[in-house]
Amino acid sequence: MSDYALITDLFGSGGGIWFMMGAALVFFMQCGFAMVETGFTRAKNAGNIIMKNLMDFCIGTVVFMLIGYSLLIGQDAAGSFFVGAPSTLFATDSTDMPNFFFNLMFCATAATIVSGAMAERTKFGAYCVYSGLISLFVYPIEAGWVWGGGWLAQHGFIDFAGSVVIHMVGGISALVGALFLGPRIGKYTLDENGKVKKVNAIPGHSITLGALGVFILWFGWYGFNGAAAGSVEELALISVNTTLAPGVATVTCMLFTWALNKKPDVSMCLNASLAGLVAITAPCASVDPWAAVIIGALSGFLIVGACNLVDQIFHIDDPVGAIAVHGFHGLLGGICAGLFANPAYGYGAGLFFAGSELVTSGEADMIFGWQMLGILCVIAWTAALMSGVFAAIKYLPKRLGIVKEGNGLRALPEHEIAGMDISEHGLASAYADFLPSAPVYGEQSKAVDLSGVTPVKLCAMQGVERYTKITVLCNQDKFTTLKDTMAAIGVQGMTVAPVMGCGVQRGHTAQYRGVKTKVNLMPKVQVDIVVSTVDPGLVVAAAQKALNTGNVGDGKIFVSGIEDVIRVRTGETGEAALDNTEK
Amino acid sequence: MSDYALITDLFGSGGGIWFMMGAALVFFMQCGFAMVETGFTRAKNAGNIIMKNLMDFCIGTVVFMLIGYSLLIGQDAAGSFFVGAPSTLFATDSTDMPNFFFNLMFCATAATIVSGAMAERTKFGAYCVYSGLISLFVYPIEAGWVWGGGWLAQHGFIDFAGSVVIHMVGGISALVGALFLGPRIGKYTLDENGKVKKVNAIPGHSITLGALGVFILWFGWYGFNGAAAGSVEELALISVNTTLAPGVATVTCMLFTWALNKKPDVSMCLNASLAGLVAITAPCASVDPWAAVIIGALSGFLIVGACNLVDQIFHIDDPVGAIAVHGFHGLLGGICAGLFANPAYGYGAGLFFAGSELVTSGEADMIFGWQMLGILCVIAWTAALMSGVFAAIKYLPKRLGIVKEGNGLRALPEHEIAGMDISEHGLASAYADFLPSAPVYGEQSKAVDLSGVTPVKLCAMQGVERYTKITVLCNQDKFTTLKDTMAAIGVQGMTVAPVMGCGVQRGHTAQYRGVKTKVNLMPKVQVDIVVSTVDPGLVVAAAQKALNTGNVGDGKIFVSGIEDVIRVRTGETGEAALDNTEK
Amino acid sequence: MSDYALITDLFGSGGGIWFMMGAALVFFMQCGFAMVETGFTRAKNAGNIIMKNLMDFCIGTVVFMLIGYSLLIGQDAAGSFFVGAPSTLFATDSTDMPNFFFNLMFCATAATIVSGAMAERTKFGAYCVYSGLISLFVYPIEAGWVWGGGWLAQHGFIDFAGSVVIHMVGGISALVGALFLGPRIGKYTLDENGKVKKVNAIPGHSITLGALGVFILWFGWYGFNGAAAGSVEELALISVNTTLAPGVATVTCMLFTWALNKKPDVSMCLNASLAGLVAITAPCASVDPWAAVIIGALSGFLIVGACNLVDQIFHIDDPVGAIAVHGFHGLLGGICAGLFANPAYGYGAGLFFAGSELVTSGEADMIFGWQMLGILCVIAWTAALMSGVFAAIKYLPKRLGIVKEGNGLRALPEHEIAGMDISEHGLASAYADFLPSAPVYGEQSKAVDLSGVTPVKLCAMQGVERYTKITVLCNQDKFTTLKDTMAAIGVQGMTVAPVMGCGVQRGHTAQYRGVKTKVNLMPKVQVDIVVSTVDPGLVVAAAQKALNTGNVGDGKIFVSGIEDVIRVRTGETGEAALDNTEK
Repeated sequence: MSDYALITDLFGSGGGIWFMMGAALVFFMQCGFAMVETGFTRAKNAGNIIMKNLMDFCIGTVVFMLIGYSLLIGQDAAGSFFVGAPSTLFATDSTDMPNFFFNLMFCATAATIVSGAMAERTKFGAYCVYSGLISLFVYPIEAGWVWGGGWLAQHGFIDFAGSVVIHMVGGISALVGALFLGPRIGKYTLDENGKVKKVNAIPGHSITLGALGVFILWFGWYGFNGAAAGSVEELALISVNTTLAPGVATVTCMLFTWALNKKPDVSMCLNASLAGLVAITAPCASVDPWAAVIIGALSGFLIVGACNLVDQIFHIDDPVGAIAVHGFHGLLGGICAGLFANPAYGYGAGLFFAGSELVTSGEADMIFGWQMLGILCVIAWTAALMSGVFAAIKYLPKRLGIVKEGNGLRALPEHEIAGMDISEHGLASAYADFLPSAPVYGEQSKAVDLSGVTPVKLCAMQGVERYTKITVLCNQDKFTTLKDTMAAIGVQGMTVAPVMGCGVQRGHTAQYRGVKTKVNLMPKVQVDIVVSTVDPGLVVAAAQKALNTGNVGDGKIFVSGIEDVIRVRTGETGEAALDNTEK
Repeated sequence: MSDYALITDLFGSGGGIWFMMGAALVFFMQCGFAMVETGFTRAKNAGNIIMKNLMDFCIGTVVFMLIGYSLLIGQDAAGSFFVGAPSTLFATDSTDMPNFFFNLMFCATAATIVSGAMAERTKFGAYCVYSGLISLFVYPIEAGWVWGGGWLAQHGFIDFAGSVVIHMVGGISALVGALFLGPRIGKYTLDENGKVKKVNAIPGHSITLGALGVFILWFGWYGFNGAAAGSVEELALISVNTTLAPGVATVTCMLFTWALNKKPDVSMCLNASLAGLVAITAPCASVDPWAAVIIGALSGFLIVGACNLVDQIFHIDDPVGAIAVHGFHGLLGGICAGLFANPAYGYGAGLFFAGSELVTSGEADMIFGWQMLGILCVIAWTAALMSGVFAAIKYLPKRLGIVKEGNGLRALPEHEIAGMDISEHGLASAYADFLPSAPVYGEQSKAVDLSGVTPVKLCAMQGVERYTKITVLCNQDKFTTLKDTMAAIGVQGMTVAPVMGCGVQRGHTAQYRGVKTKVNLMPKVQVDIVVSTVDPGLVVAAAQKALNTGNVGDGKIFVSGIEDVIRVRTGETGEAALDNTEK
Repeated sequence: MSDYALITDLFGSGGGIWFMMGAALVFFMQCGFAMVETGFTRAKNAGNIIMKNLMDFCIGTVVFMLIGYSLLIGQDAAGSFFVGAPSTLFATDSTDMPNFFFNLMFCATAATIVSGAMAERTKFGAYCVYSGLISLFVYPIEAGWVWGGGWLAQHGFIDFAGSVVIHMVGGISALVGALFLGPRIGKYTLDENGKVKKVNAIPGHSITLGALGVFILWFGWYGFNGAAAGSVEELALISVNTTLAPGVATVTCMLFTWALNKKPDVSMCLNASLAGLVAITAPCASVDPWAAVIIGALSGFLIVGACNLVDQIFHIDDPVGAIAVHGFHGLLGGICAGLFANPAYGYGAGLFFAGSELVTSGEADMIFGWQMLGILCVIAWTAALMSGVFAAIKYLPKRLGIVKEGNGLRALPEHEIAGMDISEHGLASAYADFLPSAPVYGEQSKAVDLSGVTPVKLCAMQGVERYTKITVLCNQDKFTTLKDTMAAIGVQGMTVAPVMGCGVQRGHTAQYRGVKTKVNLMPKVQVDIVVSTVDPGLVVAAAQKALNTGNVGDGKIFVSGIEDVIRVRTGETGEAALDNTEK
């Protein structure tokens, strides 16, 4: 049904243009995947994730062009309902261009899903190989069953835009990959017997990037689900369903996590949006909006359960939640298509429409049966092939002596700890520059009244040192008050740095994709002041008055000795070096 | 006029596809809003802002589906020109799908504008409630007046894509909300009598993200303004106007801030682009390009004035400038539509075309009058309803005993200071990972000649300590020079950290959205070197020579004592622990 | 051929809509350029780069509207084949709107390419001037030769979407600008004679942002190359070619850098994607997919060579690689169009089709000859005009006394070192907020057994101080283990900060866009613990045991003295201030 010739027949050149524009939107989803996966993993692997997301599309393009596309689309030519006759793109004539472009974009989506679950610990070379193999034959053959006129297409299997064919396949591949790979170092705390004692959260380095990715994916999904629409009316139904399902899923997840954990979970809600999108992908063109609402609500619960199941029950480490989002919700979408499909839309009848006048009860049963059988076959196909692929990648190179240490799939522990950016790509850091950030805000609402402040009597090593360093740890919001107060008593310079202050017995409970963590690190600024002529006791007393709000967490002040100080520009030492007044 | 049936009548299936594609572009603006609001606020609230932007769309989808849409579109059915008969989406037949999708996207835009002005201090639950109410009835009813065949539509009110109906409504809601909420802690410095003594800038944590959001919004605006075009020619006029107005606004703002402050203001120019886009939204299809240029120029001045008025005169704290951008320029757009509309485009005549042959002078007066009356009614409607909504949210929960401390709208001070991420969502940080950044660049252009360098005579505590710590504060650009010089004299290890150096009597004047701030924190690196066998005086002398450029700000060197040192791997202490040569 | 009237003739209103939608996608490329250029430069210049990317579009809009467009499009009206008669947009009638919108977007692309090569050191005012002049006449006139019915159009010059007309022109302008400007401070290490002794890498501050930009550009390129397609079939061919070329280029570059440097280079591969896109831009509609594959493969090698040539041989400092990507590959695209054009597509015959039945050998030679001549003329035109423009900007203001110090083009060294954000825009920082990041992950897999741990005997200054500070430097992954171990022995508080630890004799080799750098800075955390009642020797012993993995890089522990400590909230000093147990 995703056929360019058919679409232009149905609604003219406008349809053909939308077919191409929709495919370009699917390309843009590669950007979304890259941002989601980068944001939800650690900074030391950011360049590596970017590279993987870039390369799965590029390698996929090469292999899909060489063979993959012909395996998908060539069913009729080969006279087979299982796999097309292999041939390259260059052997096909130019009228196939729209369909090649369209199918390539979908193929690349299946390939890119896997990288998230295997992030932060997979060898880059291994990634290139398995990602290429997915696009070479794993995806094309099963997609051909449904979209290339294959045996499932013959029996009316409903998967309009690929909940099963793409997302579930990606999710299962991710699951197999994560099992072969094992969890990241530090993800699970083991007891003496090697049993998991504690599940740890390893938060990503930028929720903002992750959210950017989710918004881009959602936007691109209007093309993903809609590109193959056969009329503007169908496109509108698809667009509405593609909005209702993720919208309801996200609201449901928010309320559910709120009830469960007392606080609505940001990272889980972002996953819920994607879960709703995945689940509506198969039935988007064949169900009524009310069914999209139900599918969304189911997704909002399932995502929480699935993340929990994968991470906390089965202890499979999936850094971005790809298995839960794509695997579980791809499956959900496939089942729901078999339940809710309204025969009025022309894609057959779901089980709930068994009594409809358009179908007999037996027909609907049959359709649902084929739907279940198709899903099982796709699961079996993917699990079997990907197990073979990952086993070969993991064990063969060792057997062949190409890999000396470890195995062919997983990076060595020292490389994982150092980060994949430096170890796999020689990239010192994806963020190789100090950000010149500074707390220039949060100024006081009232000036500090210093009258009557008496210097604190300090226990210093009288006679041994000439200069005193006062180190102040305080909240960022109080920094400007501190700075102005220091200026008022004659302090001329200071150094400010961001630190995390840790009180071991207090703290907030944080949650990250369902894992609870005790957080007792709070952001603070550390201010270092070195004085000679100004009385250190006065500095301490003034700082204490300026910072004191009477609340726990107001900070601490440390006093230590400095033996000497040199000004670089002039070479002056001692007191002269500390005097910053311009002469 | 934004009607799918009409559009497909006029230009076929191409028109219908563009109607849907344009609506998808409007969805993408949600991503733009999320990035703008996140970038222009602080890092400790990033997850919260993301969540709000995600949820206003999702909650809006649910309530708009349940009732909102029927209030907007159902005028005729109800026989009323004020509000449609309430009903759910599921009661309508499928031909309404394109219009529902289109209108939902616009509704969500109105809702999302408010979050920026109320950022960093609003309770998340309160946000969910008021954001839902906007989509439930505040927006749908007044939008129905103009777009649903309501009483303003009957009188030819011109607001093609919603300067008034969406942006001004969002801006006024934001204004009311910010008034009920009060400013963020630290935004205004008060004197003894509680009068504002000083307006402080609270810069956002990423101008880059903010700019990304602005570019995404501008891109999406081609759909926002263009989706309802009735022909390709009209779409072209709209696209040109939607480019000229923000282009000219941004150039005007750049020149204006340059003249005003001696430096062109980045954050203000980003706001100016949005201001120009908002202002051209109502008149985009009814004015000539020359009028778009004038509207743009007006916006370039107005944005600076409006930001100043809101922040510095009225002391209303609007972190992202939503009131100035959407409120003021929505109003400007509504007025300009009544002034510049060229009757040749078929949307009536503006006041400046009173003498045109297509209209009589009285007719144009009448149109302008209705335009003004309509704007006033929308202002009154929004201000009245939103005041009620915010008053109820603020005071009711306290009255009902649900909220014990503070009020129902505003987060408690300790939560605001700790950040909304941890207090509202249990998210430790949206950026929960140290970025492994490092100054690996900026190497010297000439090697430092160390011949003739004599050790500095230091005032150390002879006999008391065995090891000396030399702490160097210098510019990032000099780090590699320092490192190589240290290696040359036998220093084997060092620790580098980013700090901000603060000299109280010097500094730059910074500007941020019109607020001037004295900045005397400059980015530096702090290098710690601990030595035992290398002469500390030589380290100091070599470092001083390597770093000295003769400029103010070359840095300082501090000398202090270290009592002992232990190497973790071997347990070696003292001198042996400091020796890094491989054995 | 990029003519709206023609397109709507050919494929109806759908074609007209795609023409406008495609142009909007080209606008979105502005966002891509902004992100690429910001990501690949340093944080201290981020606001400045954003501003430049915003302003080149806005200033370009103003000047293109005032004159530029008429110079491009007005050839026929003026009866000239060299340049159109100057006139403003407002003098044209409304039917030109689609073409104006379309051409403006392409013009802005040519202007924005230059900013990357001249980033981090160009005065903002100078930027505004030369960027405006490019859009005013440099681009419009030569674009008119090819796209406005000018003399090259008359001879069948093939440049479908602007490899030559836009990208090569941008690249050459960038080259001329970079030559007039000189390299950034620290980019090249010179020997005593001023010869370049060493090429340094100055990595950008966010590869993630850079990658985001590349994905956005690639997405937008489907509009850039496709917008002017004359049929859906042509659009499909263009889309396929626009995918194959960058896909193959990226794979080739990955394999090539992998073979060359033992590791696949992330930043070079991102450049390779863009290089492939630039190279396919001219021939996208006139070559077969197999030719796109060849063009992509050539680009994958050329990008590595061109970056090397520009940076390491000619020592021209181009921070983002604009000269290599746009200049070299624009040229490659122009040549390949003359080699591979298949006459069956209707744009003439390339040299390799000289024997085709559709053309005679002489005809193909002629076409290739005109292609080469056109390229040379565009190079000469751009180089000559831009040399004049940059010379005038550099030397005139000094001559006229407007600029006192330095020249009119380049920022003063102190401004360059401080960063363009603060010096040119008064923007304290584009990232003006400490990110509250913290290593909350990486917990231990086994608890540390502390039985039998004996306190280390420390060399402390007995009798002189009361409190001891233990400073631990360790890997981030070990932090939680350390924290829990400290809690177990009674330590109640600590301060954590990210630092880079530097061992001068070890390190990784990093690569950044072809430049190799020795990296011996590794990310560490610095943990400061101050104790009084807990035995410092026990703290050291426990920390050593907790952190010891037997690997190089396990860290160091330093012990020093603290003279006094004060708790801000209570004013308590000494031991009482260190006691964090709640009372």
